[in-house]
Amino acid sequence: MRPSGRAPSDMRAVTIERNVAMKAEGSCLVAFGNTRVLCTASVETSLPGWLRGKGQGWVTAEYGMLPRATGSRTRREATAGKQTGRTQEIQRLIGRSLRAVVDLANLGEAQITLDCDVLEADGGTRTASITGAYVALVDAIRWMEERKLTKGEVLRDAVAAVSCGIYRGTAVLDLDYLEDVEAETDANFVMTGSGKFVEIQGTAEGAPFDRDELEALMNLAGKGISELSELQKAALSA
Amino acid sequence: MRPSGRAPSDMRAVTIERNVAMKAEGSCLVAFGNTRVLCTASVETSLPGWLRGKGQGWVTAEYGMLPRATGSRTRREATAGKQTGRTQEIQRLIGRSLRAVVDLANLGEAQITLDCDVLEADGGTRTASITGAYVALVDAIRWMEERKLTKGEVLRDAVAAVSCGIYRGTAVLDLDYLEDVEAETDANFVMTGSGKFVEIQGTAEGAPFDRDELEALMNLAGKGISELSELQKAALSA
Amino acid sequence: MRPSGRAPSDMRAVTIERNVAMKAEGSCLVAFGNTRVLCTASVETSLPGWLRGKGQGWVTAEYGMLPRATGSRTRREATAGKQTGRTQEIQRLIGRSLRAVVDLANLGEAQITLDCDVLEADGGTRTASITGAYVALVDAIRWMEERKLTKGEVLRDAVAAVSCGIYRGTAVLDLDYLEDVEAETDANFVMTGSGKFVEIQGTAEGAPFDRDELEALMNLAGKGISELSELQKAALSA
Amino acid sequence: MRPSGRAPSDMRAVTIERNVAMKAEGSCLVAFGNTRVLCTASVETSLPGWLRGKGQGWVTAEYGMLPRATGSRTRREATAGKQTGRTQEIQRLIGRSLRAVVDLANLGEAQITLDCDVLEADGGTRTASITGAYVALVDAIRWMEERKLTKGEVLRDAVAAVSCGIYRGTAVLDLDYLEDVEAETDANFVMTGSGKFVEIQGTAEGAPFDRDELEALMNLAGKGISELSELQKAALSA
Amino acid sequence: MRPSGRAPSDMRAVTIERNVAMKAEGSCLVAFGNTRVLCTASVETSLPGWLRGKGQGWVTAEYGMLPRATGSRTRREATAGKQTGRTQEIQRLIGRSLRAVVDLANLGEAQITLDCDVLEADGGTRTASITGAYVALVDAIRWMEERKLTKGEVLRDAVAAVSCGIYRGTAVLDLDYLEDVEAETDANFVMTGSGKFVEIQGTAEGAPFDRDELEALMNLAGKGISELSELQKAALSA
Amino acid sequence: MRPSGRAPSDMRAVTIERNVAMKAEGSCLVAFGNTRVLCTASVETSLPGWLRGKGQGWVTAEYGMLPRATGSRTRREATAGKQTGRTQEIQRLIGRSLRAVVDLANLGEAQITLDCDVLEADGGTRTASITGAYVALVDAIRWMEERKLTKGEVLRDAVAAVSCGIYRGTAVLDLDYLEDVEAETDANFVMTGSGKFVEIQGTAEGAPFDRDELEALMNLAGKGISELSELQKAALSA
Repeated sequence: MRPSGRAPSDMRAVTIERNVAMKAEGSCLVAFGNTRVLCTASVETSLPGWLRGKGQGWVTAEYGMLPRATGSRTRREATAGKQTGRTQEIQRLIGRSLRAVVDLANLGEAQITLDCDVLEADGGTRTASITGAYVALVDAIRWMEERKLTKGEVLRDAVAAVSCGIYRGTAVLDLDYLEDVEAETDANFVMTGSGKFVEIQGTAEGAPFDRDELEALMNLAGKGISELSELQKAALSA
Repeated sequence: MRPSGRAPSDMRAVTIERNVAMKAEGSCLVAFGNTRVLCTASVETSLPGWLRGKGQGWVTAEYGMLPRATGSRTRREATAGKQTGRTQEIQRLIGRSLRAVVDLANLGEAQITLDCDVLEADGGTRTASITGAYVALVDAIRWMEERKLTKGEVLRDAVAAVSCGIYRGTAVLDLDYLEDVEAETDANFVMTGSGKFVEIQGTAEGAPFDRDELEALMNLAGKGISELSELQKAALSA
Repeated sequence: MRPSGRAPSDMRAVTIERNVAMKAEGSCLVAFGNTRVLCTASVETSLPGWLRGKGQGWVTAEYGMLPRATGSRTRREATAGKQTGRTQEIQRLIGRSLRAVVDLANLGEAQITLDCDVLEADGGTRTASITGAYVALVDAIRWMEERKLTKGEVLRDAVAAVSCGIYRGTAVLDLDYLEDVEAETDANFVMTGSGKFVEIQGTAEGAPFDRDELEALMNLAGKGISELSELQKAALSA
Repeated sequence: MRPSGRAPSDMRAVTIERNVAMKAEGSCLVAFGNTRVLCTASVETSLPGWLRGKGQGWVTAEYGMLPRATGSRTRREATAGKQTGRTQEIQRLIGRSLRAVVDLANLGEAQITLDCDVLEADGGTRTASITGAYVALVDAIRWMEERKLTKGEVLRDAVAAVSCGIYRGTAVLDLDYLEDVEAETDANFVMTGSGKFVEIQGTAEGAPFDRDELEALMNLAGKGISELSELQKAALSA
Repeated sequence: MRPSGRAPSDMRAVTIERNVAMKAEGSCLVAFGNTRVLCTASVETSLPGWLRGKGQGWVTAEYGMLPRATGSRTRREATAGKQTGRTQEIQRLIGRSLRAVVDLANLGEAQITLDCDVLEADGGTRTASITGAYVALVDAIRWMEERKLTKGEVLRDAVAAVSCGIYRGTAVLDLDYLEDVEAETDANFVMTGSGKFVEIQGTAEGAPFDRDELEALMNLAGKGISELSELQKAALSA
Repeated sequence: MRPSGRAPSDMRAVTIERNVAMKAEGSCLVAFGNTRVLCTASVETSLPGWLRGKGQGWVTAEYGMLPRATGSRTRREATAGKQTGRTQEIQRLIGRSLRAVVDLANLGEAQITLDCDVLEADGGTRTASITGAYVALVDAIRWMEERKLTKGEVLRDAVAAVSCGIYRGTAVLDLDYLEDVEAETDANFVMTGSGKFVEIQGTAEGAPFDRDELEALMNLAGKGISELSELQKAALSA
């Protein structure tokens, strides 16, 4: 029924390859099927003015898409002179999701910037970005810990994200582009390794949805996040 | 327990005053307690290029906040030279929420722009905006119908929005600014008059939340939306 | 003869309602007929860099127009990414006009920003803005005086503004939109409560004007300003 | 009494050199003392969209200042990414002043752009710009007439501009930079060759001014404009 | 003597991997040592307005650098709101270099955009970009030829680029970052497969250079380009 | 053979007039035939942040073109809101060229900005700008020396620039606009008074060029630079 032949509760093949950017304090290339995102974590010990002297750090994110990550070429935001509303929405979401599992006081006076650049887009770029950015973040924190730059335990939990949707009347997990375009309802779930919600964003693209449908999506999301958490753990212990 | 003395499931006083902008095809001033938003609907029959010749119309929204709607003066976006990410996120949400109840084909080749300008901000400006914009939209559609500019029934349902959150451990309805700042979890629900979901956005500001907490928020939201729908109906039949 | 039926030397109905913005140090809603402007005064004690350490304060203004203040929707300046030349001209004029009656040294190291946002535009938005901004400014200065933030008498005089023009060959006072569009000559007068000139801007929109015509406009302006001064006084002592 | 030793009613030495830009349809270098402005007129027969098909033309102006026209270097507007409010105000004034003496219908479907670029600034750059731009405009219209591009008499009158002010208590004509900085009142007069007003802009920089002072300034302006008109005529018949 | 231990006339290891972007009409990942650039070619048959109806096509390029391609994080140009002068210079060079070997008339009415995005920067990003962009361009032209979209032979020759410089007094080929920072003279050569010059840019970073030094650099460049041409051919026949 | 009737190795008439901007520390009007550029040097002793405390100064350049320097009017960059890639390329080149002959340590903590504004453009604006900017720079350094603001000998050599090209198969010196448009190869040479290269930029506009052609261009450039150096010396000793 799904264009890819997957069962409703199947994720796409997910891979996480660490240390792909020589110069970054943490990095990985994350793939959710054909969607591929390069995530780097950059540690800066000089904070932006508004954060200085508060005895805590900050975690932020930026998101970009290479012009030809998409089926037809998308205009480069640097040429257009500004980021689209969609880009800003996504990078704000990534930043919030990561901060939800970080103890900013224990981070000390440092800022970690996660750059998520989409090399290939086939649906789920924001969920892949969050999932990969977490891995890059962990490496950056380990880098800081080796240099005794943190003040205590920085990470409270793991975090990952997955999309679900109602596609042709059925709740399905991890939508690819073909499904995304057509789905009646599209929802993104950001959840911790321990299974709690960090962020839920559900949108009726066609008909409004009801509570039963939302329940079905939540069940799928729980399954997906649990698989992603295992993959993150495996990558990080490799 | 709440700073305002409200019970957890109490909305603030909500008022909707129609026809406040002489020149707009639809308008209202909506207040959720001290939060006041001026909503106008503007009908344009010359469509933007990308929509022309598709036999359908469009509904879009823009959001702004007067510089001194807030406790300390906020920089004017026109001076800064761009809209913030937050502004773009909100105006995209308002537009999506309204389109969810509009039959764009029946609207015909016209564009309706909803401008939501916050005169006073005390929490819940996006939910008040959606609730008020719907009323202005109905008046604009009536205006079009009187001039036989539509092709059929345009509205499929009503739409309203309300926020809920976990404040000091308790699920509460319709957060004001003081609650919003402190809430552990903050969620916005956009729902139809018939009680279905158009959009859910839940965010853990502090600790991640679990499914029980989400259930409690959904219950409150249902109650709030049902009250808002009645107020919209009353305003529109006045 | 005038579209509104007014006599040549009649002002429109002018009202000034104070304290309309809960959070601002001073505010009013001023109406010149159907033209309505929300004026707020914001006191900031942290000065911009170029003013610091000079032992004086500053008064500045910003002007905006809600998109549907006008007959057809005007593009939002925040979306366009910049203020128009007209907007900048008007806000510079408002700032200059207010500073003309302020003793900046006695103001102390503080900046007062007057935001004039047009809710409805029917001609004379800049003159209504100046007239209302003065009232908001007085309230802000009173607020500062109560907190002993000033160094002496801040206000030297009152200030108000009115437009005049040659409409169908006759000099008329306080042009509304219909007159403004058609007037051969259009002049704005900013004058003190004591009847002196702060700013004169006269423009021949059609045929150039001569000294007699200018005299006639000045006479009308004197009458209008004197009425506006009384209304400001009444509002401020209410 | 004046820093330059001039009598109160003395203009600075004014020169107008025509045909200084090989490629422009009209051009001149105008000097008011040390203030020097290069004015070019460019004829374009392809109109901007909003003017097409209206059976009339348009005259517009742009103003710029070379970075080192001033005592200390001024930031280049092209680097800053936008024109200042002052620049926009001036170029709008130049455009309006020229259009006041042009019959746009007789101009035909053409646009003439006057570029006024200040090579050296010593006070009065906007009045020199208007005075010189008129000369460049006349040459451009002659160029069009030779090619039979106009539909009838385009110019209704000549136009020139001069500043006056109250300097140390005395009304003086044609302020230079040292006077401008210190003047209590500063006024710009744009007048036709036949002595009528096109635009008056008077501003109290210090104390507000009264009607007698304004009369004195108008008298001086009349004298100055009459001299400038003679110089324009002489230049144009050379 | 060189930090990498290479002999003066040694290139770094160069690899070209084709078809790395699923959706682009042509693509490759080119590496010059640690410098890695993702090059994609996008074919658009709807031309920009200024090119339409001229019976020819266009080839253009855009260049970008991921924020953490560099040792410390570089600000994202999309966030800064504009491309730096360096970026513009490089993308103009890439476009010119490719057009030098393309018959635009035979290309037909199509535009090919080459996006060169630097994943890792270690010196020579512009020369790697040109070398890789040529390969992506060839694939895009083959894609067009298969669809009979071209009008004749499009490519006149191959093109590649390499840098040379005077490093510690010796002429060396293909500078890496450490050499680039310190080189007295830095030159980029863009040459055709047949050994002719398309572009030479030589800059004295320290002392000016003389003709003998330039000769030495040209000799090295010829060697490097000849090796790059072989690698391009091999990649394209793989 | 050349449109101007010049022999292949003839420069256009070159003139350099010093002290044309009253307020600048150095200035000249340089003409290469009909190309005329106003060059000013501005000395600032307050350095930009990134240069402070490094015990050295900086020399930078900005380039602009009056809108009607060209055959048809060019859009003003201040109106467009940004400098074109071409402008940025040129001003970076001018700055690099001048810094190549300046001892920045001996300059002391000062910044000299060279503004090159093209009054009339007929080919070779960048080479005229460099040649003239050097003269303005020398005057600014002399101004500093008179005030004992430098720390030692600032200038190491003179610098000038000239273009050469292959026009209808022949190597020619100092291309004017008509030649520039049609040239197969276009090269700019920046050289010191002592005949060494500071910058070479050669571009094949049509067919790629070979080493013999490059040799011919270098020979012409040497001749041109030597003439320009003499003219600079003469101007500076006048």
